[in-house]
Amino acid sequence: MPDRQPTFGYLTPERLPLFTDLYELTMMRGFDEAGHEPTATFQLFVRDLPPDRGYLVVAGLEQVVHYLESLSFGEEAVSYLAQQGFPEDFLDRLADLSFSGEVRALPEGELAFPNEPLVEVTAPIFEGQLFETLVINQVGVQSLLATKAARMWDAVERFGDGQALVDFGSRRAHGTDAGLKAARAAYVGGFDGTSNVAAGEAFDVPIYGTMAHSWVQSFPSERASFEAFVDVYGDDSVLLIDTYDTVDGARIAREVAESAGVSLAGVRLDSGDLTALSKTVREVLPETDLFISSGVDEFFIREFFEDGGIGQGFGPGTALVTSTDAPKLEGVYKLVAVEREGELAPSMKLSAGKVTYPEQKDVRRVSADGQFVRDVLAERGEEGLDGEQLLEPVFEDGERVAALPSLDEIRERTRRNLRSLPTEHRRFRSPTSYPVEVSPGLSETTDRLAASLRERES
Amino acid sequence: MPDRQPTFGYLTPERLPLFTDLYELTMMRGFDEAGHEPTATFQLFVRDLPPDRGYLVVAGLEQVVHYLESLSFGEEAVSYLAQQGFPEDFLDRLADLSFSGEVRALPEGELAFPNEPLVEVTAPIFEGQLFETLVINQVGVQSLLATKAARMWDAVERFGDGQALVDFGSRRAHGTDAGLKAARAAYVGGFDGTSNVAAGEAFDVPIYGTMAHSWVQSFPSERASFEAFVDVYGDDSVLLIDTYDTVDGARIAREVAESAGVSLAGVRLDSGDLTALSKTVREVLPETDLFISSGVDEFFIREFFEDGGIGQGFGPGTALVTSTDAPKLEGVYKLVAVEREGELAPSMKLSAGKVTYPEQKDVRRVSADGQFVRDVLAERGEEGLDGEQLLEPVFEDGERVAALPSLDEIRERTRRNLRSLPTEHRRFRSPTSYPVEVSPGLSETTDRLAASLRERES
Repeated sequence: MPDRQPTFGYLTPERLPLFTDLYELTMMRGFDEAGHEPTATFQLFVRDLPPDRGYLVVAGLEQVVHYLESLSFGEEAVSYLAQQGFPEDFLDRLADLSFSGEVRALPEGELAFPNEPLVEVTAPIFEGQLFETLVINQVGVQSLLATKAARMWDAVERFGDGQALVDFGSRRAHGTDAGLKAARAAYVGGFDGTSNVAAGEAFDVPIYGTMAHSWVQSFPSERASFEAFVDVYGDDSVLLIDTYDTVDGARIAREVAESAGVSLAGVRLDSGDLTALSKTVREVLPETDLFISSGVDEFFIREFFEDGGIGQGFGPGTALVTSTDAPKLEGVYKLVAVEREGELAPSMKLSAGKVTYPEQKDVRRVSADGQFVRDVLAERGEEGLDGEQLLEPVFEDGERVAALPSLDEIRERTRRNLRSLPTEHRRFRSPTSYPVEVSPGLSETTDRLAASLRERES
Repeated sequence: MPDRQPTFGYLTPERLPLFTDLYELTMMRGFDEAGHEPTATFQLFVRDLPPDRGYLVVAGLEQVVHYLESLSFGEEAVSYLAQQGFPEDFLDRLADLSFSGEVRALPEGELAFPNEPLVEVTAPIFEGQLFETLVINQVGVQSLLATKAARMWDAVERFGDGQALVDFGSRRAHGTDAGLKAARAAYVGGFDGTSNVAAGEAFDVPIYGTMAHSWVQSFPSERASFEAFVDVYGDDSVLLIDTYDTVDGARIAREVAESAGVSLAGVRLDSGDLTALSKTVREVLPETDLFISSGVDEFFIREFFEDGGIGQGFGPGTALVTSTDAPKLEGVYKLVAVEREGELAPSMKLSAGKVTYPEQKDVRRVSADGQFVRDVLAERGEEGLDGEQLLEPVFEDGERVAALPSLDEIRERTRRNLRSLPTEHRRFRSPTSYPVEVSPGLSETTDRLAASLRERES
């Protein structure tokens, strides 16, 4: 048996910098030994939105901030790298490493579109290179899942009556970090809380829960199980009524509540034709909140209301935490500018199908009558352009210069933004692409640089 | 700004039990206050395999073992639950909790099919209920990703020449735990290593890396960038050759290597028509290993070889770590038996579309001529059945009774199992369902119990 298998709490701040691809460290050692230490600008962005997505809800910046602020190669990390053959001088440098650069970013809860930098890092290349893996990972998963959550929030907002949404997905998330971050991202995307207790503790979001089938099965009868639960929880009881037959379960729940003299906080429906059952159960329990789980996503919610379903809350699970219909966000973190002769010069690659826009950037959003009209992707500081500047300073000279908003503030920003995005970009299938224009300055720089690279390499 | 936002190393052993759904704790408090403390058996299984999957590779048991062995509600966990209104008596009981039950499981690297228990927990219901969320989460994500990895290993085994496979996906995994566990699961599924340095340290798997486009872009020319890298790494150099033009890049790589007197360890191709380019690059660099990345999955690998592509290694990323074509595994953890009058009695629910087989079980696998023929799902200890017993004891009376195999042993088991599974069940699309029979004893118990439940509830 292996003598050590750290797993869950493994990524302490002292080990966190190891959450990187080996090539980052290989290159850092190379930069060091070659004495090649230019300042460079990297940008995190997506080239395309996932299928059937008209926008991204940005999330995860707070984790990037904490990562940069706590950056520290601890003894175990350094010792492992020594075993892998990294030389002592290099390891000494890692042990002393802290972030000294600049970060600009789209705030969490902002909407992003293709090619717009979500995070822009300008730093000595030795530092900026290291962050690639973790920055893509964290902003990637949270933005993917916040976007999925926002679609469900949009569904209860537009087709329902703003019903409660609670993340029920932890068990099906891809690991524990995804479970925690899904709960956070769901809140960013408009949700009301999570079932995950650890996420409640970590992020101070409300936690909710009902009961499982095992509660019901563990008693000699459904009735006995409801009696026992109501005896403990009284008016706070939420009973799961589908273990044997949903409508029978509703009747038994009513009888148990009446006989105990309590008014149930709710019942949960978890199988069968949830829309039809919700109407029948509502007749049996007219004063009780119905909580709907199993297979809930934005498509389900829309059809549930279209077909006259009645519910006061939804518990999306797997579809939320895996973003099942679009489970990947192909974020990239690309070098867009590099110091040449003391100045930051634009840089890009020409790889087939993977061309990137060079340069530090601005993102501007143009609105009319409270609705977003178009974005403009521009060179940083480019003048003569309309629209609100969206990238905000986060770090300067290695020091954080912006306060972190609360999750409630972030969620409010998301909701405000979604309401400002025309519905054709919020369709659940085949949304119209939101227009992102490239500014005159950025167009010209891109064309000029591409031409000169093609010439140089030919 | 929030004063505390724990994220990455948050789930220390003392906080890990909080990674659970609130309803587990609600029920546990209910069991406690109702004095309802039967022994119960829970089983983790899937009702159906994901789309286009003919088998599951079981993975993640080791993390479950560590979780059960380290089970401990620490002070911060208890204090948070107190804030949430849980009473002091209950919290005292949590603070003293440790696992006292039995676990039987399919070993990691074993193949599993629908309704077969991956993990079976028999314990006081107060304990067994708590584990649901984490057990599904960990065995779920690792089995999902090990299965995806195994398909790629099968592809290089059957269509190629057993080429090297390295997990390159950390940045696109759903969070840090998914990144770490994907690296582990990939190894379980047959891979050779990972790019993730932390996973290398945590699980002692080999780590590999090359260079990124940013290395090339950060120098005045591709040639200068290759020269600098070769100067540091010599014969160990693996050069990325597609930043501007892949074939030009190959020629420059050859010239740089010749002029420095080194033989390159490899070059990496990362864009364009990788199959066609691999043949051209091979002509330019006949002695150099070609490493293929970007969009690699089992379908890509098969067609790469069918079209005569040449490569010595592949670096699957996003498709591996998100299992993009089938990103969810709907594992459930269901109560199948519960103590009544001092004896474990079978239990099941009847929820529409969610019926489960009751009882502690055996899983038997019948082989002929070294190939798997069918499985039999049976009652525990049922006699007169053929086939190898697959469930192994892991814990008895709260003590671990089995050694944990090494990852190399697990990987060898996976490979041996895949070779024993007829290819019709290993198809990448629409595989034939592997037969899982239900034994006479289990059939009879299931029918009898369902009838009696329907009668009792009607």
